[in-house]
Formats: sequence, C-alpha cells, structure tokens
Amino acid sequence: MPKASGTEHEPNLVGRSAQKRRAILSAAREVFLEHGFQVASMDEVAALAEVSKVTVYKHFSDKQSLFVAVITAAIAEAEATSRSLVDNLGKSMEVEQDLRTFARQHITVVMQPHLIQMRRVVIAEATRFPELARTWHHAGPERGHTRLAEQIKQLAERGLLDVPDPMLAAQHLNYLILSIPLNEAMFAGRDRPYSRRQLHRYADEAVRVFMAAYRA
Amino acid sequence: MPKASGTEHEPNLVGRSAQKRRAILSAAREVFLEHGFQVASMDEVAALAEVSKVTVYKHFSDKQSLFVAVITAAIAEAEATSRSLVDNLGKSMEVEQDLRTFARQHITVVMQPHLIQMRRVVIAEATRFPELARTWHHAGPERGHTRLAEQIKQLAERGLLDVPDPMLAAQHLNYLILSIPLNEAMFAGRDRPYSRRQLHRYADEAVRVFMAAYRA
Repeated sequence: MPKASGTEHEPNLVGRSAQKRRAILSAAREVFLEHGFQVASMDEVAALAEVSKVTVYKHFSDKQSLFVAVITAAIAEAEATSRSLVDNLGKSMEVEQDLRTFARQHITVVMQPHLIQMRRVVIAEATRFPELARTWHHAGPERGHTRLAEQIKQLAERGLLDVPDPMLAAQHLNYLILSIPLNEAMFAGRDRPYSRRQLHRYADEAVRVFMAAYRA
Repeated sequence: MPKASGTEHEPNLVGRSAQKRRAILSAAREVFLEHGFQVASMDEVAALAEVSKVTVYKHFSDKQSLFVAVITAAIAEAEATSRSLVDNLGKSMEVEQDLRTFARQHITVVMQPHLIQMRRVVIAEATRFPELARTWHHAGPERGHTRLAEQIKQLAERGLLDVPDPMLAAQHLNYLILSIPLNEAMFAGRDRPYSRRQLHRYADEAVRVFMAAYRA
C-alpha cells in the first residue's frame, strides 16, 4: 500500500479525512494497475475504498488528479527507500563500494512489480494524457538524475571521479543499472520475475563500467 | 511506409495479391499508431487500404496477426538500415571509430517517431496481449543484442576488446546509446524531437564509456 504521507501533494488533513484519503489512494492504485487509466472508473475506486463517490471527488477533482496522486505517492515511497544512500554518496570514502550498495538497492526498488506495471500504464497513456507521463518523468527519473548528479559532482570536486558533465554521468549510471531488466520487464508481461542474484549482478556490472569510464 | 519484403513472415505472393498485402500493412500501421491496439479496427484498416474486409482477413486471420506483421515489418526495415554496419564490426581495424559510426546510425534509426509510438503501443498491451510484446522483444532488442554480441566476441578474440561476457557487453553498449533519449521519449508524448547533434552526442559518449570499460 502506498503511504501518501510525506509527499508534497498531500494537503494537511487530520483524523478520519486523512484516513479516507489514504483508503482512496490505496484503492485507486489497485484499480489503475488492474485496468489501466482509461478503463478505470471513479465508481470502482469508491466501492473498493468503501467510501461514497462524493467523498472521492471531495479529495480528488477528477480521475487524472487521482492518478497523479497515486503516481506521486508511489514514486515518493520508492525514493524514500534509497534517499539516504544517494544523499551520502558525495561524502563517500569508498566510492566503488558505496556506489555498488546504492545500485543494488536502486535496482531492487525500481523493479518492484507495482512500479513496473504503473510505468506501463503511464507509457500507454503518454500520447492521450501527456500530463501523467510528465508527472512520472519529473517525479521519477528527472529528480533522481538531478540528485545523483549533485553527489557525483561532489565526488568529482573531491578528486575521486573525473566527470566533465555530472548530469550525463548520472544518467549513464542510472541506465547502466536499470536498462537491461527494466526493458525486458516492459515487454515481458507480468510473468518474469528476477532473482535477487540477477539484479545484483546487473548492479555490480553497471558500477564496474561506470567506474572504468569516470574514475579519476 | 513499412516494406514487408524481406521479412520472414511474408508468404510468397505475386502481383496484385502482394500489392494488396502491402497496402493493408501500410494502412494497419497508420491505424495502430493512431488509435493503439485495442481501439483499432479491421474495418478502419480495410477502408484506409481501399480493400474489402474479406481481403484483409484473407491475408491476416485476426487483428493480433496483423499487428504482429506490422511490428515485424517495421523492425526488419529498421534493422536493414544498420545491418551492414553491425555485421562488419567484428573485422574492424578502427574499433572506436567504427563503433561510433554504428552508434550514431543506431540511435537515429531507433528514435524515429513511428518506432517510438509503436513501442508505446506494444508496452501498453504487454499485459493483455503478451504475444505482441514478446514478438517486439524477440525481433528487436533480443536479436539486436545477439548480433552485436557476436561481433564484440570477434573483437575480443582478435585482442581488441576485453570482454568476459559478450552478451552483457552488447546490452551495455545498446542501452548506453539509447536509454537517455528513449526513456525521455517514452514519457514525453509526441512533442519533443531530438536534434541530430544531441543524438550524436549521446552516441559518442556511449562509445566512450563502453571503450573505457571494455578496451583490451
């Protein structure tokens, strides 16, 4: 269940109202992942959340706002898991080892089935509802690359990496870690889970390639 | 327009029948890209191709077979463009330079708007119609990686690269080249074209990173 608390989009609610909002978000996530954006209905969300449709609309003005809130909450939750790992990279004394720890954590988080399926739903609607895709891209990869680039810049300033363009280096690292399993997952339906060992190998090899290219 | 000739799925047709098949494929591509797989109808394809619905079904037993043929033709056409570049990499005397030429060509081909949109349609249906996604993955990235890995293996055998796992190296190279613009494109709707200069920079930097990691 996605925890909405801590996301920037959550209004300051207390008690029963906050509880209902969480129930709606949780139900909405389930409905969107099951049916996609187009087919999903506010009626079904209300029924699953055990609230009235009026209550749903009191919290979310339309289906698109509701899906944006679901996306934002899911990404914030995923990000929270690896935030401290990323934010300490710049101060690392053991760059390669700390990058490997980050990479293993990162790939494990991003490859969670609900995020894979949500990514698919977002891509599916990118043409008809570009706002959804932009929200995903901004809250996910864009912000992730920016945060990673800041840390890489610090490592370069400390003379531990040689990086003319920290943003490009951050994108290289991110996609070296994720691309192989993420692309396979996009095209493989729901039936191909990865073992922890496989994911760790992708993470370790990504860091090896990255260090070869960017070591000072 | 996708040329169906040369794909493995094309039956041996001559004259008017082959002409009609091409017209159907071309119309189908347009309809699928415009509406996605679910909403697209065989009626619309027949109307746009200016043939009867019976003729459409004579060539393609159902909508899924038709879409598989469209995917296969589009990928075969894209592949044909860079095939000779890939197939000569193993014999290269100037590895870095030849990889760069390949990378620039590869990114230009893959980022064509119709392939981006088709990729989106395929991902959208990956859960409901896994066969479509598997066809795409098999004809596209999987076969591409295999062919690239063979050439990388030859370069390693000639002592020009140091590659313990040619398939992994091929995947690293492919995604270093494509991931940044391809992921942005997936989430950006139809409105963000890349300049040739931007794409070439991604290609060149990908080869730089790859060579740093795999140079002998």
